[in-house]
Amino acid sequence: MTSFISHTSVDCGNAYELSEWWKALLGYQDIEGDPNLPGHEECMIVHPDTGHQVLFIEVPEAKRIKNRIHFDLRPTDGTRDQEVARLLGLGATQVADHREIRGDGTGWVTLADPEGNEFCVLRSEAERAAG
Amino acid sequence: MTSFISHTSVDCGNAYELSEWWKALLGYQDIEGDPNLPGHEECMIVHPDTGHQVLFIEVPEAKRIKNRIHFDLRPTDGTRDQEVARLLGLGATQVADHREIRGDGTGWVTLADPEGNEFCVLRSEAERAAG
Repeated sequence: MTSFISHTSVDCGNAYELSEWWKALLGYQDIEGDPNLPGHEECMIVHPDTGHQVLFIEVPEAKRIKNRIHFDLRPTDGTRDQEVARLLGLGATQVADHREIRGDGTGWVTLADPEGNEFCVLRSEAERAAG
Repeated sequence: MTSFISHTSVDCGNAYELSEWWKALLGYQDIEGDPNLPGHEECMIVHPDTGHQVLFIEVPEAKRIKNRIHFDLRPTDGTRDQEVARLLGLGATQVADHREIRGDGTGWVTLADPEGNEFCVLRSEAERAAG
């Protein structure tokens, strides 16, 4: 007997707006048969290929401290730095620059979504393969 | 240009012990070529079929408040209540019982891992299909 991770849930202040933001960022979609609408207190999004699901749930309390659980993103094309620029253009904010954490530029950039949830942008597979 | 969620990262006090606990819980494995060992400050685990990855990273700060991001588990076989009993036997603790949140027993149980990270256990697909 076991379980699987059905989805990852993200507490938020506005489930519709935050789920729309992440959908645009990552190419996720509404889950079949349950479109996200303004005012919905729970909005589920799904990756069209992998089926990976994220649920945004409204809660009364605001974010106060650094999240202990976060997503790490990897560009599918282009570079880490190009992707960071794209995400900043979409409304992410930069929290920390760890690109030089190992002294060789192989680190990451920590951004935050419009509600302040931290996430990291890593190098692409192509950049990793190049050394 | 886009990104994908490479993995979900969980801040923790002991990355090896917490990753071993979740591996046993969910049937995840060490990532190929990088076995988790006691003392490792970062331990990555992966689902053998879906490739879903979770990274445990040691941080100096302790958990203080409810996590704003959490995993929701669904039993692959058996029922929600059987799975809750199994997880409590593995060392999870019960945080809240929301089975009657809709008054019909279709809700969930909130548990916590050994470091206090909340997660929920939902009904199985078979239980949902039965109504």
